[in-house]
Amino acid sequence: MDSIGTETRVDYARVFHQAIDRLHAEGRYRVFIDILRNKGAFPNARCFAGHNGPKPITVWCSNDYLAMGQHPKVIAAMEEALHDVGAGSGGTRNIGGNTHYHVDLEAELADLHGKEAALLFTSGYVSNEATLATMAKILPGCIIFSDELNHASMIAGIRNAGCEKRVFRHNDLAHLEELLAEADPAAPKLIAFESVYSMEGDIAPIAGICDLADRYNALTYLDEVHAVGMYGARGGGISERDAVADRLTIIEGTLGKAFGVMGGYIAADRTIIDVIRSYAPGFIFTTSLSPVLVAGVLASVRHLKSSTAEREGQQAAAAALKAMLRDAGLPVMPGDTHIVPVMVGDPVKAKKISDILLAEYGVYVQPINYPTVPRGTERLRFTPGPAHDEAMMRDLTRALVEIWDRLELRMAA
Amino acid sequence: MDSIGTETRVDYARVFHQAIDRLHAEGRYRVFIDILRNKGAFPNARCFAGHNGPKPITVWCSNDYLAMGQHPKVIAAMEEALHDVGAGSGGTRNIGGNTHYHVDLEAELADLHGKEAALLFTSGYVSNEATLATMAKILPGCIIFSDELNHASMIAGIRNAGCEKRVFRHNDLAHLEELLAEADPAAPKLIAFESVYSMEGDIAPIAGICDLADRYNALTYLDEVHAVGMYGARGGGISERDAVADRLTIIEGTLGKAFGVMGGYIAADRTIIDVIRSYAPGFIFTTSLSPVLVAGVLASVRHLKSSTAEREGQQAAAAALKAMLRDAGLPVMPGDTHIVPVMVGDPVKAKKISDILLAEYGVYVQPINYPTVPRGTERLRFTPGPAHDEAMMRDLTRALVEIWDRLELRMAA
Repeated sequence: MDSIGTETRVDYARVFHQAIDRLHAEGRYRVFIDILRNKGAFPNARCFAGHNGPKPITVWCSNDYLAMGQHPKVIAAMEEALHDVGAGSGGTRNIGGNTHYHVDLEAELADLHGKEAALLFTSGYVSNEATLATMAKILPGCIIFSDELNHASMIAGIRNAGCEKRVFRHNDLAHLEELLAEADPAAPKLIAFESVYSMEGDIAPIAGICDLADRYNALTYLDEVHAVGMYGARGGGISERDAVADRLTIIEGTLGKAFGVMGGYIAADRTIIDVIRSYAPGFIFTTSLSPVLVAGVLASVRHLKSSTAEREGQQAAAAALKAMLRDAGLPVMPGDTHIVPVMVGDPVKAKKISDILLAEYGVYVQPINYPTVPRGTERLRFTPGPAHDEAMMRDLTRALVEIWDRLELRMAA
Repeated sequence: MDSIGTETRVDYARVFHQAIDRLHAEGRYRVFIDILRNKGAFPNARCFAGHNGPKPITVWCSNDYLAMGQHPKVIAAMEEALHDVGAGSGGTRNIGGNTHYHVDLEAELADLHGKEAALLFTSGYVSNEATLATMAKILPGCIIFSDELNHASMIAGIRNAGCEKRVFRHNDLAHLEELLAEADPAAPKLIAFESVYSMEGDIAPIAGICDLADRYNALTYLDEVHAVGMYGARGGGISERDAVADRLTIIEGTLGKAFGVMGGYIAADRTIIDVIRSYAPGFIFTTSLSPVLVAGVLASVRHLKSSTAEREGQQAAAAALKAMLRDAGLPVMPGDTHIVPVMVGDPVKAKKISDILLAEYGVYVQPINYPTVPRGTERLRFTPGPAHDEAMMRDLTRALVEIWDRLELRMAA
């Protein structure tokens, strides 16, 4: 029996090493680039030793889309909160961690989307996961209809819900209707989708999806993380731009991208917010957002409700960069948003291009490989913002053309 | 067919209202108390209108256990980072959100626990959920052995792992061994438990659990969120105090309680950290912690590695309060940690006591009801720290005795 015991003994270290070896073999082992951004000089940053540094670089892949993370109003609000109430909240929302900043920000976000109420989470990931899982549990027999390109956090929430799921082809209304028509009319239904798909840079037909939701009595859940602050007259996202916010059951957003800080939220009617607040473990059992962050977001949301300069600057920069790259014959993916993806189609080459850009050109753009995008669609993803000027764009274009030639990558068109 | 269509139509609003009604019926509908703490004067805070305010209160239920959230070194470090690099990280760890602060803090936390590496998460909840779910997926056929009082975030991780689970009676080594002996010797095994159980205030037999792990070739996962910063010569937790850190596979902690800020982490060997970093969706697909928070935590962890005054002050305060409450005949639950739970055993009464304390005595302590604790064990939970003085304790004890008399609650002993 002893020898059998030895033979069957699990070799944990071997299993863990094999898991890492698989990543290397597929060329998608990730190396985190070690940087510090320079407040007041974004997109400039410092890159640290071991990663081509220390030396100055230009960041081309930040999701601080409007550079609000360095806005004087945001910095001032955070500094004030830091000195007024201290570093952390000290507890969950229910136990000591509900500050007046949280209450104010939830009111501000509800107003941004024209909803009765809003609820803060520690991240957009958690808001998607917790809300979708909880909605399905509160609605026994619920079927969730999910766009095939939905973000990992929505997929996690749907899987953790343990409910039935139907995946519709990306932005395909006909396929969604086919699936809705097939489903039991008596079953609760929730359609989960995004407005701006961040790796494609395309936009969902929100009004069309709302029409289908009306026809089949389904609820709707819209992830606007890559749109809030950036679209709509007050930054309420694509749902504001398209004047359909009132038709959506739940709108979800982030505080860590265009608003420049950290955290996530949902906005909906008062009862739904109360249900998620009361039943979602990912909301209940976690220390609330630091009041310092919440104060910064409050300033950011309020500023972007009235100021349009950042949004206009971002759209102009995105249009200019797309035109420049396209004119140079580089394979820019189509799309009418602020996101500029350039297709590579191979994880090793995507990483190689990124490495050369950083080492030789001081350009920081991360390769986007599986599991962030499907295998075979590996790409570079540029996020020009109001602070990227024309000279930076020319430098970037020249560098890409030179590398495309050097690596003998086929040019588009 | 139309009428059948109408009959079977889901009434979503009714389902949501019923979910809220159930909470009211059970007396466990939660009202968040709206406060702002006063930096430099903790545990004093301001309570807002609608919640007995605005007026000053004393906070008795904060998890900012050592008042590090107002420590001058922490505040200074956050202010410096805010002005150096701005509000948020601007991306996931892989895409633009890996700052030098993150790299430094992970090294500091690895050192705190004597491990090769560490990994930051946006919260302790996410670190538990993401790590446990991912460990089980990397180890096919894994069985997780889980203490019955484990935190909701560990339970979520184990459930989301979709693996087999065996729940052992709280801190019961004999029962754990029974379950380990019954399991297939060839199956990977992971024992998940906490050091300090935060609602009970008791401590796990870590060395005994490590002995069983050795005997049955199991990995161990220890949640030290209510111990890091507070136990051990350098604040490494109970595993440092008991000199067993090197026997544990993974140690998990929080940055939002004794360290006073926000966030969570794990520490382990380099390969395991690399596996979780590379495979856990809850780590990969989320904006990294704001560098402002990370800078504050760095200062906090470094301070508590050398300073013992905060730990000693907390232990003295906890001992003094327990003695005072016990002498007054109040039902303090046994335990030798910094947590002082007083049993009530009824959700409506627990809330009533808490309401009177806030309205009449300016004492803020939240009632702890289901699902945070099992039904029938509802309680008040006091967390005295180095900043709670003897006068505050006397006021609290007098208030509780008066309320216990008024509500005709049976006194212990």
